[in-house]
Formats: sequence, C-alpha cells, structure tokens
Amino acid sequence: MAKFSGWIKEITPPPPSLQDNTGDVDRIIDFLKHKLDVDTVDIDMGLLKTLPTILRKSKYSIRIILVKDNSRWLIIGIMPKDEPCVAAGLAVDLGTTMIVIRLIDLLTGKTMGEASFLNPQRLVGPDILTRLHFADSNGGLEQLNRLIIDGLNQNIKKLSLSCGITENDIYIVSAAGNTAMTHLFLDLDPHWIIREPYIPVINSPNFLKASSIGLMTNIFSRVFVFPNIGSYFGGDLIAGILFSGLNKTDETAILVDVGTNAEVVLGNKNWLMACAGAAGPALEGGVTKMGMMAGPGVIDKVHPDPLTHGIKLHTIDDKTPIGICGSGLIDLAAYFFLSSVIDMRGKFIPSQCSGKLTKIDEINHFIVVSADESAGREALTISQVDLDSLIRSKAAMFTILETITTHVGVPLTDLAKFYVAGTFGSFINPESAIAIGMLPDLPMEKYKALGNSSLGGATMALLSPDSIEEINRIKNNITYMELNVNQEFMNRFSAAKFIPHTDPLRFPSVKIPVNSGR
Amino acid sequence: MAKFSGWIKEITPPPPSLQDNTGDVDRIIDFLKHKLDVDTVDIDMGLLKTLPTILRKSKYSIRIILVKDNSRWLIIGIMPKDEPCVAAGLAVDLGTTMIVIRLIDLLTGKTMGEASFLNPQRLVGPDILTRLHFADSNGGLEQLNRLIIDGLNQNIKKLSLSCGITENDIYIVSAAGNTAMTHLFLDLDPHWIIREPYIPVINSPNFLKASSIGLMTNIFSRVFVFPNIGSYFGGDLIAGILFSGLNKTDETAILVDVGTNAEVVLGNKNWLMACAGAAGPALEGGVTKMGMMAGPGVIDKVHPDPLTHGIKLHTIDDKTPIGICGSGLIDLAAYFFLSSVIDMRGKFIPSQCSGKLTKIDEINHFIVVSADESAGREALTISQVDLDSLIRSKAAMFTILETITTHVGVPLTDLAKFYVAGTFGSFINPESAIAIGMLPDLPMEKYKALGNSSLGGATMALLSPDSIEEINRIKNNITYMELNVNQEFMNRFSAAKFIPHTDPLRFPSVKIPVNSGR
Repeated sequence: MAKFSGWIKEITPPPPSLQDNTGDVDRIIDFLKHKLDVDTVDIDMGLLKTLPTILRKSKYSIRIILVKDNSRWLIIGIMPKDEPCVAAGLAVDLGTTMIVIRLIDLLTGKTMGEASFLNPQRLVGPDILTRLHFADSNGGLEQLNRLIIDGLNQNIKKLSLSCGITENDIYIVSAAGNTAMTHLFLDLDPHWIIREPYIPVINSPNFLKASSIGLMTNIFSRVFVFPNIGSYFGGDLIAGILFSGLNKTDETAILVDVGTNAEVVLGNKNWLMACAGAAGPALEGGVTKMGMMAGPGVIDKVHPDPLTHGIKLHTIDDKTPIGICGSGLIDLAAYFFLSSVIDMRGKFIPSQCSGKLTKIDEINHFIVVSADESAGREALTISQVDLDSLIRSKAAMFTILETITTHVGVPLTDLAKFYVAGTFGSFINPESAIAIGMLPDLPMEKYKALGNSSLGGATMALLSPDSIEEINRIKNNITYMELNVNQEFMNRFSAAKFIPHTDPLRFPSVKIPVNSGR
Repeated sequence: MAKFSGWIKEITPPPPSLQDNTGDVDRIIDFLKHKLDVDTVDIDMGLLKTLPTILRKSKYSIRIILVKDNSRWLIIGIMPKDEPCVAAGLAVDLGTTMIVIRLIDLLTGKTMGEASFLNPQRLVGPDILTRLHFADSNGGLEQLNRLIIDGLNQNIKKLSLSCGITENDIYIVSAAGNTAMTHLFLDLDPHWIIREPYIPVINSPNFLKASSIGLMTNIFSRVFVFPNIGSYFGGDLIAGILFSGLNKTDETAILVDVGTNAEVVLGNKNWLMACAGAAGPALEGGVTKMGMMAGPGVIDKVHPDPLTHGIKLHTIDDKTPIGICGSGLIDLAAYFFLSSVIDMRGKFIPSQCSGKLTKIDEINHFIVVSADESAGREALTISQVDLDSLIRSKAAMFTILETITTHVGVPLTDLAKFYVAGTFGSFINPESAIAIGMLPDLPMEKYKALGNSSLGGATMALLSPDSIEEINRIKNNITYMELNVNQEFMNRFSAAKFIPHTDPLRFPSVKIPVNSGR
C-alpha cells in the first residue's frame, strides 16, 4: 500500500527517457507538486549528493520526508521505498525547570519513548530572570544556549538508543517553550523581552534547520519552534491551546496555566482571548519556608481525616514528608477555612488550632508535621505570612479570571470547560481551589487537568502538517488583552482577597463555617 | 530619498510600543509584505543575532537586502539606513576553459570591475569529457569542485580588493555555465549527464546559500545558479538568451553559440525553440595542427591583400604568428574559395596555389606563414585534412540551422536578427562564414556578435528580481528539439558539404568563381 499522508510520502515518478529528460530533482518536485496540488516544493540541496544513486537503485520507487514551511513544502529526506522506514519526530517541552522530550514514530504517530531532565541552565540560576540578566553578560547568552543544546543532544542520544534508533533517524523536532526559553534555545538575545515595551526578537520562528542551532538530529532535519505572541505569552501556551482543543470547540472554554504568572486563554473555534498576570509566587516552590516543587516526599494532597477530625497528608511516592507544594498548600488552606482554623481573611483563629499554633519571631505558625515525623527532623509549618501570600495569589488568579470573562461578556459560570495546564493542574484539587475562592465554583466535571500540555501540543505538531497550519492559525487568532491594573481591577482584587469572596453567592457550593468572621 | 527598488529596500517600520509589541523580525516582515504586496517574506535566521541592536541603533530606519526565490522573498542583509551602502553582486561565467567574474554595484547596477582566469580544472583535463570521467573516480568530483571553488574564492578576493571592497560586501552571486560545469560547481555527480538518457541531477538550482557551496562571499549571501534544460543545453545558453533579448522581441530571431557543439535558439517573445548538435571540432583549438584558442599571436583575421593579390594576416595583439584560431580558419577558407585556391568541395586546386602547396605524408598542406615568419620557427600550414574537417563542421552548422527553421516554418531569410554568441561570435567575420556557406546569406546588419553572453546574462540577473522571473520563464518556455539524424538530415548535410552549397541560389551574395568545379 502506498503511503501518502502526513510528512512521509511514497511515490514512484515515471523514470526518465530520451523523450523525458527532466533532471532528477525536478522530476520528483514536479511529481510531488502535482500529487500534493501545491505551487512550491523545495529540497534541501544536501540531499542531491545521494539522490541520483537512490533513484536508480530503487527504480524510482522512493519514500520522501517533507516538512511544510508556510506555503512551501520542503523535502528533507529520501530513501528507497523497499527499505524499512525509520523516521522519528521529537517533541520537546522547553521548561524553565524541567525539559521533557518524547520520541514519536512519524509513520504511525505512536510514542516510542519519553525522558525528562532538569534544565541544565539551573547552574546559572533557578529562575528565568536570573538567566536573562546573565545572558546580558559577556558570553552569557552563548553559555546558556550551549547548556540547553548540549543537554538536549545528550538526552536525545540516550532516548534514541533506548528506543532502538539513533538520533540520525530523527527528522522533525518540535519545540515549545515560553518566550524567554525559546530565545535561549535559539541563541537569540533576550535583552529586550524584559525591558519596556517587551519585544521578542521573533514571534514565529517556524521551521529551522536543526543543525543550524546545533541539534545533532538528522543532518537534514528541521525544528519547528512554536510561535509566541509576546514576551509574556509563549509557545508553550500556544502548544497548550492546541493540546486542549480550545481552538476547535463550539462552546466557550477556558485554559489556565499557573506558575509565577497566571496565563489564561478564553475562547472557542471562532475567537481566542488571552491575558497573563502575576499570580504571585505562593503557588511555586521556594516561597513558603517549607514550600517546594513537587517531588518525592513533598506533601501534594491534604484530606480531612474523619476519624481524628484532623488531617491526612499524602506525600509523593509515600515518602516521609520533607515539604509542601502548591496543591498541598491549597488543600491545607481549604481545610483550615472549612474547619475554622482560619477566618475569611485567612488569619489564624488561635482557639481553633488545637494547640498546633506556635509563634516564631512573633509570627503565627501552624505545625503541619512535627519535627519527629518530618524527613528533615524539623517541623513543617505554615505561617501567617505564607497564608497572606497565598491569599494574594488566589485573589489575583480569581481577579484575572473575572476580568477576562467580564471583558468578553461570558460569565465564569457559562464556561463549558475549565482546563488547568501544567504539573500544577495535574496535582491541584479543584474542590480545594474553589473552597478558597481561587477557581470559580463550577461543577467538578467541567474541570480538566491537561498535564504537560506544552509537550502534548509539541507532540501534536509532529502528527500532521495540518497541525502546523492550526498552530499558526491559533497564533494569528489570539487577541492579547493587556491587564490594566486600574481601579476596577483593584476593587475586584480586594473583594477576592476574602475566602472564598466578599460575595459568597458566587460560591454556593462552599459551606462557609459560621465562625468565619462573616 | 528612500530607495525601494531591486534587491535593496530602505524602510522605516513603526517602532514598537506597549500597544504594538510585535517581535522585531515579524515587524520587519509584516511591513515588507505590505510594501511589496507579497505573501511570503522570510529571513536568514543568522541575521537575528545582530538585528535587535541594528533596529534600536538606527531608530528603525534600515536598509534591507533581499533575494526572491520563486514566490518567496528572503532577507539576507540588514544595515542602518544612515550607513553608506556597500552591496555588490558578482556575475560568474563558468566557462570550461575560462572563468570570468564581474562585480556589480547592486544599488546602481554599474560594473565595478572584471577579471578572468583559466579554469583551474584544466589541471585534470582541458576538455569537459575528461573531467567528467575523472569525476567518476574516487574523490574526483570533490577535487574538481575544490579546484573551481578555490579558484573563484582567490579571484573574488583579488577583484574585490581592486574595487575597494571586500568579498564580505558581495551579497548576491549569479553563475551561468553549461550543465556539466554547473554540476562540478555545485559538487553534484555528473555521472548521468553523459550516459543515456542524459539526466542532470537538477535543472533549476535557483538560489542557494553561497556558504553551502564554499563560496567566501558574505556569510548570508546567496548564489543564483542559472537553470538548464538538459545535459546539452545549459545555464550559459539560458543566460545568452536573456542577454540577447530574443525572449522579448516581436519578430523571430536566432541565437547561435558555436563550440564543439553548435547550440541554436530560435524564437521571439511568444515561443522559443532550441536544439544542439555536434558542429564538429574544427572551429575550436587543438584540431588543426596549428589551430588554437584565441590568444596573443594567434591569427584571428585574414583579409585578401589587393596589392599582392595574396592575403594579409591579422594576429591578436599584432604579435608574430604562432597559430590560427577558428575565425582565422574560416576567413582563410573563404579566401581560398573566392580566389579559387580550393574548389566547391573544399579540395586544393594545386595550379592555383602559387607554389604555397606542399605535401607532408602525402597530404596537401597550404603554407600560410613560412617558417621564417612564424613565432615557432615552423611553417603554419592548413592541410587538406583541416579543410575537410572545416567543411564537415560548416555543413553541420548550416544543416542544424536549416533543420530548426524548417521545423518551425520560418525560412532562414526571414530572421530579423542573427545573434552569434561567445568568443567565436566576437571574432568571426560573417561575410567569410557566408562565403563558405556556414551561416545563411543575410544582410550584414542582421548579424550581431554578443561577446560573452553567458557573463552578460549573469550580470542581468543581478540587476533586478524581475530578471530571475524572466530567466525561469525562458527556461519553462523553451521547447527542446532533439536533432534526429535521419535521411532528411543526411540529405541536407550532404548538400551543405559544398561551398557555399549545392544550391547557390541560397547564397546570392557569394560571387562563385568560374573554376570552382561547378
């Protein structure tokens, strides 16, 4: 059966004769133009070294690998049709903290394997801003770029081997990352993306020659780099939209990605509206003294314990607790509020704390895990400062959601789906987030965790040339709404700083305790 | 005055703001798309390293250098508008024997300088066939490619310096050569172009990155390589057509390029018909014992001397004679015929030779220059064998002209112009060529020598993006006529083997001597 779909085409153009002396390349290109019904088919000139021999050996029965760059198809691989087809694609999630790579069989679309590794740029700094400032120093950008490219090459080699192929079999790479990571990946100066008016060097890198950015995949392979629509709305989010399917639904839905920034996209198949705002760092590791990224021993879930009327902690991999991550903190805050440990302003009510409250430097701390029971032999606590920070974050989140939905005139309660992206989205318990008024009070079935939607979108880009068109369509369709921190925004923010909200009617499902201070 | 024409555009896109945060690259591309009214503008990604700084330094007033590859514009250079514009183009005639390069100021279209050098591949072999067989040997192709590329790089550097620029200022190269030379230039295997059914690797290389083929012009520069329409009809001839303007005339004209092959193009702005055939080697150097390429001391013109009733020889640079080139041989043969030294079959009439005929190995030789007067102290002679060879060549030439014009139904006498290309075309005296029946008996004013039409066409390609379109139009418009050596052809050939022809009515201007044998 002749394969003629996706990136791989099997063709048998008519062989040349004295009556038809068209050149080897032009013969293939003319045939493909006709087959694909397109105007422009180009070829990587490097393929011309082996092309004549392959054509004659295979008796003009060949397999061709193409990519589609805007309106132009480009031939990047040619092999005899009767040879087994080994052609892989590589999806890359260029995370600030973690890089995830996934190998895809381009012929079947099936996942061959996956691997992740810490972003080697953490050697320069854990947060992106430190890295961007470092990039300004002499040789800094090159160093950051080498770290990510070398890290990728090593891990691509390892993953390929473990999947029984070599990196030479990888023909298409698709990479999604935030705008800053994309700049560092492409060795582009990020200087202006963090300075007013915040201009990226490029919005739509499209397909690049992998070798031109140092990737050691097939010498003719191409990298598709997801477009961004500005410094604060990167390719990882475009990938997320593609993965969620938001761009294809009839009903309006919302996609939220929470990190240091809360990035929000609202829309349907006809329109997309995006905004991003500082959600506060409370939900990321490193802010509360005990807060950290999700990892073994980290408390990610907290349930009320009906037996003890206290709480039951869940740690990742069931290890002895070493800290608390964002989702655990939200669960805890919800429990605190629902069991009247804190009031509607998020302040501890000492009489309700069953002796678990202690003062350190004059600040109230709630002992979540005693020193005896913690891995570090030091009590894990949540302080009033931590809670205040969480309240600001959850208020910011809710305010952003309210602002964007109000802006387009779609009430939060009318949303058909509520997608939560990222690791945070996978761990978070929407019931807890609703209880503290961070997320709107929607029926549970509307909430959907997407997992690594950046990697998911990057994978989809590998599955068909149509995805690339869809990605560019998404990019061009998004209206970016600049968040104006005006009086209206501040009023909303102030109202959202209560648990769940100054207006409890917005959260009918939350059973507000009588002694919450209301 | 803003320059906005040709390859160089001066633009001032609106600077970014918080309200317009489009990326640097996308800002320029969007602006150019609008200005040029085109769908696709791409950029060489290497330019992105310096782009942000150039934009901000120049306050968004920039000069851009573009090439146009099919329907796609490609940015290959960016500089501040207030810097002086140094942007050169390089036209290259990839001759088998001689390489000629010419520097053009891309802004004004003016020639800056020109240089020529012997094709370094002559080290492998003087003729193209020897080189093509050598290319089949291990490492042979690479060696031939290095010879031409290294030779070009050295001479480009020298010529640039002599013109007060550096090779770094060269942004566009256009190269025209026959199909074999084009393959060796691009490091492409020429194996199949000399084997039935004679298939080139590529017909239309279009624009390539100069660095990808080893040229040391600007790192972002592109090379336009003239297309061929087969092994026997190369880019040099397409360049010749462009240079002649054949493709733009209302009336039908003809273009002839004579070497080992006679290449003929007939047509007008509506259609082009081409054919090529072996014209015999008599017109090139190396065949007659004394025959050679044009060069100092070579007899290139022969006039009847009214004083002595003998002949007056002209040598190139007025040096002591060392040999005879094709045009000299034709003049000589015409003189021989018109003064009854030879008969209509081209055979010497001993009684008419005034004692200048001598026998060497039983073969008649006519002493053109005595041993005393020649540079080599050896008599320069024309033998009966030389004359027989010339007769076959001239007969082949005329037969080809007759065949192609008959094929399209345009009598030779109806041609509006008769262009003769190449060095041969510059030296040849059409009156002599008519006298021996090599070229048709047209009024002198219809004959036009084009000189180096390959270089001329390559130069025109640098003058405007429209030329590139015209070149591709020419390539697509040519109908190639395979010369069928059938009975009809052989009949014509036999008739043309007489001087000027068996049918003297075709050559009314030639005063046929009474004792010509007719």
